[in-house]
Formats: sequence, C-alpha cells, structure tokens
Amino acid sequence: MTRVAVIGTGLIGASVGLAARRDGARVAGFDTDPETLALAAELGAVEPAGSLGEAVTDAQLAVVAAPVTALPRVVEEVLAAAPDATVTDVGSTKAAVCSAVRDARFIGGHPLAGAETQGPAHARPELFEGATWFLTPGASTDSARYRSLHGFVASLGAVPVAVDPGAHDRLLALTSHLPHALANLLLNQVASNRIEGHAPLAAAGGSFRDMTRVAGANPRIWIDIFLENSEAVRAALAQHRGRVERLEAALESGDAGFLARWIGEAAANRRELIRDAYPEGALMRLVVHVPDRPGVLAGITQALGAERINIEDFELQHVSPERGGALALLIVGEEAARRAADLLDGQGYGVDVAPAA
Amino acid sequence: MTRVAVIGTGLIGASVGLAARRDGARVAGFDTDPETLALAAELGAVEPAGSLGEAVTDAQLAVVAAPVTALPRVVEEVLAAAPDATVTDVGSTKAAVCSAVRDARFIGGHPLAGAETQGPAHARPELFEGATWFLTPGASTDSARYRSLHGFVASLGAVPVAVDPGAHDRLLALTSHLPHALANLLLNQVASNRIEGHAPLAAAGGSFRDMTRVAGANPRIWIDIFLENSEAVRAALAQHRGRVERLEAALESGDAGFLARWIGEAAANRRELIRDAYPEGALMRLVVHVPDRPGVLAGITQALGAERINIEDFELQHVSPERGGALALLIVGEEAARRAADLLDGQGYGVDVAPAA
Repeated sequence: MTRVAVIGTGLIGASVGLAARRDGARVAGFDTDPETLALAAELGAVEPAGSLGEAVTDAQLAVVAAPVTALPRVVEEVLAAAPDATVTDVGSTKAAVCSAVRDARFIGGHPLAGAETQGPAHARPELFEGATWFLTPGASTDSARYRSLHGFVASLGAVPVAVDPGAHDRLLALTSHLPHALANLLLNQVASNRIEGHAPLAAAGGSFRDMTRVAGANPRIWIDIFLENSEAVRAALAQHRGRVERLEAALESGDAGFLARWIGEAAANRRELIRDAYPEGALMRLVVHVPDRPGVLAGITQALGAERINIEDFELQHVSPERGGALALLIVGEEAARRAADLLDGQGYGVDVAPAA
Repeated sequence: MTRVAVIGTGLIGASVGLAARRDGARVAGFDTDPETLALAAELGAVEPAGSLGEAVTDAQLAVVAAPVTALPRVVEEVLAAAPDATVTDVGSTKAAVCSAVRDARFIGGHPLAGAETQGPAHARPELFEGATWFLTPGASTDSARYRSLHGFVASLGAVPVAVDPGAHDRLLALTSHLPHALANLLLNQVASNRIEGHAPLAAAGGSFRDMTRVAGANPRIWIDIFLENSEAVRAALAQHRGRVERLEAALESGDAGFLARWIGEAAANRRELIRDAYPEGALMRLVVHVPDRPGVLAGITQALGAERINIEDFELQHVSPERGGALALLIVGEEAARRAADLLDGQGYGVDVAPAA
C-alpha cells in the first residue's frame, strides 16, 4: 500500500498516518474539523486534502476513522469517491456498519488501541505495536483485498485477527463494554448512598479506585458505543444479572461450597488472564515499603536496571508524604524477582515477594 | 496502655504488637497455631504465652485478631480470662460479634489495613499509619475504656472512626464486599464465554486486568466475610441489580439522555473519589512513552527526584520487551506536572499531561 487516505485525523487516524508514512506510504488526510486536520498535518501524520473526495482520489486504501454513528454514511461516500480503493474503518462496533455497507471493497476493522487520550496531538506511529486489530471480512469480501489489508495492518505492528462482525461486538461487549458499564454502575451506586451520616466514597480504598478507573470516560465516544452495541451489551448485562442472582441465592442459603468454588474459579481465571498478558513467564509481585518522598524511587529503579531486571508494571498504594507507601513491582520470572528482592533487601528496604496471580 | 495482649498473631495481630512495642508497651501474644506464634515472637512482635489465659492475665487491653467466625467465642473467652481488661477485635464484619458479645468492656474494631499479604512474616509497625480504624462502641460501652482504646488506636498511627456495627457492615458491603463480588462475577462471566471459537479473556486489556485485580482473593477470609455480612452484601447486590436493569431499559429504548447523565454522574463521582484520595491538590496524569527495557525507568525517576517532584502512583500499561509501553505517572499539582513533562520532554520522551480524574 503506497497510497493511503485517512478520513478522520484524530488519535487513531493520525497514528495510522504516522505509521504508514514511516513505512514509506503517501498519506492524504481529511477531517471535517479544520483544526484537527491542520494539527495532524503539522505533526506530519497526513498531507491535508481540501475535501474527502480529494483525499481518496487516487488511494489504494482508505481508512475511515469517523465516529461510529457516522460510519455507514462516510464509508459509502468514500466507496463512491474512490472507485478502486479498498476501504476499511476503525470503529469500536462492527455489526451496524458491516450490515449497512455490503461491498466487496469494504472490510470492517477495529484496532484495540488508544482510549485514555484523544486527538491528533497524542498520535504516535507505535500506537498499534502488538495490538490486536480485528478485521471483519464478509461473504462478499474480495480475498485479494483482504490479504492486502491484512498485510497493511501487520505492517503497522498490529496483530490482525479475523472475526465475524456480530461476534466482534459480542466479544467487545464482554471484555470492554460490560466492564465499563460495571465501573460506572459501581461508582454511582456507592456515591449515591449515605449510611448514618457516613459517605461510603470517603471509605473507599485503592482497589475501589482500580475498579473504577475507567468510570466516567469520554461520553461522546461511550454513548455511541453503548447504543450501537445495545443488543450485545444488554445480553452481557442480563447474563451478569443472572450471575448476581445466583450469588444472592448462595448467600441467602449460606452456601459456603458455592462461594469456595466461585472464588476458586476466579483465582484460576485470574491466573489465566495474567499468563495471557505475560506469556514470557511467571509474574511475581514485589511489595517494597518505601518512604513517600521525591527521588526515593530512583535508587530502586536504578538498582534493578543496573542488574538488567525489568519492571513490568507498578502498583503504588498511595499513602501520604509523612507516612510512606507500599510500592508493588511486577517482575517476570521467579529468579529475577528473587534477585530484585535480595538487592532491595540489601539496600535496607522491607520486601515481600509472591506470585502476582 | 502499657500491658497489651494480642490473641491471633497473623499479619494484623503481629503488626499491632510491633507498633505497640515500638511505643513502649509490653505485648504478650498467643495463637492457636504454634508456628504463627513462634514466628511472631521471633520477629519481635510479641512475647509468646503458653495459653490464651496466660497471654491476657494482666493485660490492660486485649486485641483479638481471630477469624471472624471464631470472634464471639474467643472474645468471650478473653473477657472471662482477663476480668479487668478492655477487649477489642479487628474483624472485617462487626454486627455479628457486637450483637453476640454485650459487655461494657468489649468494643469492636476494624482497621482498613493489610489485604494482599498475610501472616506475621509480613507484619510491620507502620501498617496502620493513616489507615481508617473503625470502632463500634455500643450503648453499654464504658466511656473511659472507649477513650483509652481510641487513644491506643491513634498511637498506632491510625485514624479512629466511631460507627454503629450495622452501619459499618453496610459501609463495607458497598466499598469492599460489593467490588470484590463484582470482580469475581465479571472475571468468571467473561472467562466462561466462547464466542465463535474466540476466548474473550484473550482479548481483555489493561483496564480489564485493573478491574479484576482482587478477583479470586484469599477464600479463607472472603467466604467468611460474605457469609457473615450476607444481609448487607445481598442488599448491595440487589441495589446493583436494580441499577443494571435501569441501564438495560435505557439501552433498549435508545435513551441517549440517560446515558449522558449516567456517564456525567460517574465522571463527577470519579473526580470526588480522586479528591478524597489526594487532598493535597489536583492529581495530574503524565503518560510517558518508554521502551520496555531494563533500566529505562531509572532515568525518569531520577530526573524527577532530582527536581523534588514526587511520583504519587504509577500505571504502566505492559506491552512487551520489543515494543515498549506507556508509563503513566500520577503527580499532585499542575505546576509540578508541567515541570515533570518539560523535563522528560527534554530527555526525548513523548509526554502527555492531563488531569487524572
């Protein structure tokens, strides 16, 4: 793909532009918002075009990065304006656009990337490195075009995964939309209660903050996602409600056996989740007791870096400047974790090591 | 309190011992498990006693750190063996023990501390620094004894908060037991689905891992908590189910207004939660794009430490050794966050800054 067009030059569109240009493609871009287009052009993500038609005019591939509700209309417009191009999109839901647009040249897509930030200012060419990029070829899809799009997605560093549009939406309903909904539901429920004068939110700890980190996220994106994927999200919520009812019944009858199996199943699933995320080896958690003052972390990260021990992730339980905190480091491999613990122990820190899952 | 007895010398009991001895108290300890008692003694947390009676014989205060289901029995035993002592406990639920034991000398308690680790090996005297420590005085409580226990808890560094036992359990049902239940429910639901051959768990990302971090936690503790606090947990789950149903109805009718209000409410609640956790000032998130290799974090933490900029918390989205990742640093104060961003930008890192809430 040496001539690419990007329609919608926000975070995802501009990142596609940066990555494709890095690989030598010519990338034309258009956005209905002139500022968004100008910024993407200024950052070197696209050559700005005066119209959608101008952007796609000689493209081999057009990538539509528009809001999900606008996708069917914009994709049809691009197909009409670029009679030879392969057209794809990057929307978070796939059934609606794929049933609205039935054309051998259109193949739906969805990279699992971005989220916390938005806009071309945050674009970067490595955004898709290692990310799953769902593609939804249909019965009418031209197979040569599919192979070519597959290669393009892989060239951006992503891992293309073919999936049926409906299956995509049901997968995302479970792994993304349901957790988002639960974060909002949990936070709003806890915040709305008052218990004999006590505000429960004030008594919430670190794990509650972890669970509600995504709560209240970008309404412009999420309202559309929930409405577009309403059916699959409702199915996931109904399934969830059924599980809540089973738990309530077990609690009502005092069924300790149910609770033991239920917690055991969760522990096994958590181990599987961690194995999937860290295929390189056993993930270990080091809890290091540290004073909460500027610079104290440098010694720790330096010491581990000097020993070529990689910190995979941090979990710092915030306490306060006076009181210090517990810094949890995730490290792959028991041997590396032991070496790290010995090293930090030698520096006078209290350290606990345990499997992270 | 110069003569303290600790019954049950696990993480919490041994930490109480260490903190009280630090402050000059004599601390006798007993545990039904000889190894747990020996380890606590070896670590300097308690002077080991041969029996519960021997431990409490001349105590002014006895702290019972036994499993919640054993509390009524053990507390009564301690009250009988130590006719002058004030007696408290540290159990995660309060209604059961406080209704079973009605004695002017007994006052229920619950420090919000510990959790990830267990056993005396992880005990430390600072465990309670800054932690809320609920106390549940009743109508029959001797007020001089309450003041004295309040002072003891404060001397450990904790913040004593008086609450009715039932209100305590309803508070914890919302802020701790419900989130725990939802983490287990979500993880088990997602793991049990197969969608046209795709395992949803394999498509889960960082925010899903955040939401299920507590899933599958210590069944020995959690089965008891769920059963002891069954009524309040069921009430919280039923309230949650009602909210799920309202969301399902809004999705079914395509009610975008409901979704906008619901997400907006969650965003406001999230801001309040973050303000409660970080009262010192506005919490800012810096997202720094870093290669994932040993030692790369040292330069970052060193540079910020040298400038006296304190990192409150880390959120590292793990990617892979080849691909690097996005390191999110939480920093209090816009000015400090800007300085940090400029500093890291000067070192060639891509940095985004935004309010964390």
